[in-house]
Amino acid sequence: MDQTCDVVVLGAGSTGENVADIVVRGGLSAVLVEPELVGGECSYWACMPSKALLRGTEVLAEARSVDGAAQAVTGEQDVAATLARRSSFTSHWDDSGQVEWVAGAGIDLLRGTGRLDGERTVVVTAEDGTRTRLTARHAVAVCTGSQSATPPIDGLGDVDSWGPREATSATAVPARLLVLGGGYVGCELATAWQALGSQVTVLQRGDRLLPRLEPQAGNAVAESLRKAGVDVRLGTEVTAARRDGTEVVLTTGDGEEFRGEEVLVATGRAARTSDIGAETVGLEPGEYLSVDATLQAEGRPWLYGVGDVNGRSQLTHMGKYQARQAGAAIVARARGERVGTGSWSPFVATADDVAVPSVVFTDPQVASVGRTAAEAEEAGLPHRVVEYPLGSVAGASLFADGYEGTAIAVVDTEREVLLGMTFVGPAVAELLHAATIAVVGEVPIARLWHAVPAYPTISEIWLRLLETYRG
Amino acid sequence: MDQTCDVVVLGAGSTGENVADIVVRGGLSAVLVEPELVGGECSYWACMPSKALLRGTEVLAEARSVDGAAQAVTGEQDVAATLARRSSFTSHWDDSGQVEWVAGAGIDLLRGTGRLDGERTVVVTAEDGTRTRLTARHAVAVCTGSQSATPPIDGLGDVDSWGPREATSATAVPARLLVLGGGYVGCELATAWQALGSQVTVLQRGDRLLPRLEPQAGNAVAESLRKAGVDVRLGTEVTAARRDGTEVVLTTGDGEEFRGEEVLVATGRAARTSDIGAETVGLEPGEYLSVDATLQAEGRPWLYGVGDVNGRSQLTHMGKYQARQAGAAIVARARGERVGTGSWSPFVATADDVAVPSVVFTDPQVASVGRTAAEAEEAGLPHRVVEYPLGSVAGASLFADGYEGTAIAVVDTEREVLLGMTFVGPAVAELLHAATIAVVGEVPIARLWHAVPAYPTISEIWLRLLETYRG
Repeated sequence: MDQTCDVVVLGAGSTGENVADIVVRGGLSAVLVEPELVGGECSYWACMPSKALLRGTEVLAEARSVDGAAQAVTGEQDVAATLARRSSFTSHWDDSGQVEWVAGAGIDLLRGTGRLDGERTVVVTAEDGTRTRLTARHAVAVCTGSQSATPPIDGLGDVDSWGPREATSATAVPARLLVLGGGYVGCELATAWQALGSQVTVLQRGDRLLPRLEPQAGNAVAESLRKAGVDVRLGTEVTAARRDGTEVVLTTGDGEEFRGEEVLVATGRAARTSDIGAETVGLEPGEYLSVDATLQAEGRPWLYGVGDVNGRSQLTHMGKYQARQAGAAIVARARGERVGTGSWSPFVATADDVAVPSVVFTDPQVASVGRTAAEAEEAGLPHRVVEYPLGSVAGASLFADGYEGTAIAVVDTEREVLLGMTFVGPAVAELLHAATIAVVGEVPIARLWHAVPAYPTISEIWLRLLETYRG
Repeated sequence: MDQTCDVVVLGAGSTGENVADIVVRGGLSAVLVEPELVGGECSYWACMPSKALLRGTEVLAEARSVDGAAQAVTGEQDVAATLARRSSFTSHWDDSGQVEWVAGAGIDLLRGTGRLDGERTVVVTAEDGTRTRLTARHAVAVCTGSQSATPPIDGLGDVDSWGPREATSATAVPARLLVLGGGYVGCELATAWQALGSQVTVLQRGDRLLPRLEPQAGNAVAESLRKAGVDVRLGTEVTAARRDGTEVVLTTGDGEEFRGEEVLVATGRAARTSDIGAETVGLEPGEYLSVDATLQAEGRPWLYGVGDVNGRSQLTHMGKYQARQAGAAIVARARGERVGTGSWSPFVATADDVAVPSVVFTDPQVASVGRTAAEAEEAGLPHRVVEYPLGSVAGASLFADGYEGTAIAVVDTEREVLLGMTFVGPAVAELLHAATIAVVGEVPIARLWHAVPAYPTISEIWLRLLETYRG
């Protein structure tokens, strides 16, 4: 069967859905190709279930930290109810709601595995073997995302390990859980399962958790995980894995052994490009797609790589952002309109370079955007780092007895604008967007001085940081 | 006793403390005059104790709204512990900590009632009758604040009513509490005391609560107060008050009676200028001080009116902001430096006019900044209002089952910048500063489009609002 449309979108995760939606709103036709659940990782095996697993633990910790309220928390978290709530947030891994949305948005959905077959062409193979050859008049957008990468550890491929998928969808609490990797996935899921009753061990090769963020973040999370009973091992290189009955056994170079019922491998991501026919258009299977600021593949103006698959910033919200920008570019180019490619134009993903926000939903939370001190240093930007304890702000003391946290601002001392901000502390997730707007808006420090934080909120930290910067 | 210094500051609330601190940091000497507790209303009888009274209720409501966590909340809030926590936030109405801070900041403190006695002169009368005549070389800053105003209701002066002071410092829960006035003070304290066991009745003359804010705010708070068991009466004009044994009885024009053990009068504020010697410098006692953008009194370059006392924006954080701006102006003028008075200069309180943030700590919270739709309309600004339900954002659903709220953006359609924003919903307080920075920074909508909210946070509402605005 052959079919022609304006845009073919490979992958119906949140990124692909958004590309398809935007080009259809722009008057083009789109076919969305997906072999698994419509909605993708984020909806079923990442953001949504992990945050649902964590929320109960978070809110109970908050209630227990307010004298007067704490006395009302006399019971324990109902683990079965939390797992059920988690499952309801994934719609019990049923995508009919999203399928309905896709149809309502005027997007054609084609179930099956899509593979490029030369320029502007995608062949989709359905589960029953039916093949459809799609030809795109304007563009093919590859939004196949990323998958958990397996590190080269002897035997790891044979122990039936968990990836983030299994760790977010598990329906029983493993008595002991080994977590390989101390990035945000490992830290969040260690927090979640320890609180739900597992005895968790985190094995991190590097010397700190959350290595890409300000060091204060990983240090605070390590301390808190340890207080919660997690065995956090830094500088620990696992070299071998094996099954021993119902146990998984990990061994380090030093011969130390760690045992658990399950092992979660969360050591990084890999591009999902090994089975998309990359070779038919001269690209290397398994590699991230190299794209320009409009997410267009280099040398192939009909091809776009949007979301995790291009390796620019692997976060759901950044994939959706890229989808909005790429979608606008595809529509404009189809209309023969000029596509401005300067910074912050409506067609480019400038934020990928200077303002990627992220929140790690651990206890404490870590919310950050823009450059860390180390990144500013590396980029050779003239900068000053200002740090201030969050707990000294009235709003934080009211929020929780003994509130502890920190805020770290990186200021460009030449342009006098904010380059980056990191908040570490309970419930800092919603503080972040203010920093994102300040960084993206390049709001001068002298003007930020007039942005008064309401008293008594935790946001008053902005005043303290600015006062400290002014000296 | 006579004393000369650079700057005399009348009133040691947070505004006066900040003026004194800034001029001392600028190399001037300052005498801070205060007849009551150093720290002022906010520390002892307003922001701090009211928020402490509310926090336990808030966090328990949050815990109860997350299935899995809710099952752990099997007890009740410990009211005695909550009252004790409140008292600890006021340092048990002991100001020695703040006195120590004042001394450490190099500020002279003079206890007593200060009254102007002609230009640059303040006479301070201590409790023991000792009088000190202070002469200010550069400036007298009046930071005496405001006090609860008593409305002209027959008999109200004789029923021993509560003001915000009594309502925030009470050590026992009144069985029934009448609240006169449905502004933010009335709404917050009705929320607090109803949750702590009182049967509260709110009597509001106008047709909605929180009348200065977007109507959705007052409507949502009224609905929630009613659900909590508060008797909310709108369009109710109380005309008489009397005591009947231990009861206070309020009567409306229609003859309807309301009874309670206490009545909180929260119908508005009045300038604290009736006993400051205003008449000795040609000003009218009891009136708000009329000041320019640097907070300097008109026609009296040596006199400043900072904080509530000038009636510009009666909020702790705005008083402190004015203190920073006025303090900078006083120091610059003392040095003979130029004081730029253009918008957003370091010496003027421009935010007073366009970006006053406020948070009402009710359930739902109401966080707002800048102009409401009605204010934009009244100012004749070309604008569009965009509203979006907060509960439809994934971060809100994760935060609480059945999360309900709304966000209302007012956009200047000519300049394409944000004029105002209102969030109504649980835990929206920390969402506000993003809007404050957007309004103050005059960040173009086209640039805000690149400020990506992290997924899944409640801040994702920004994306929904921008998408809706773009259509």
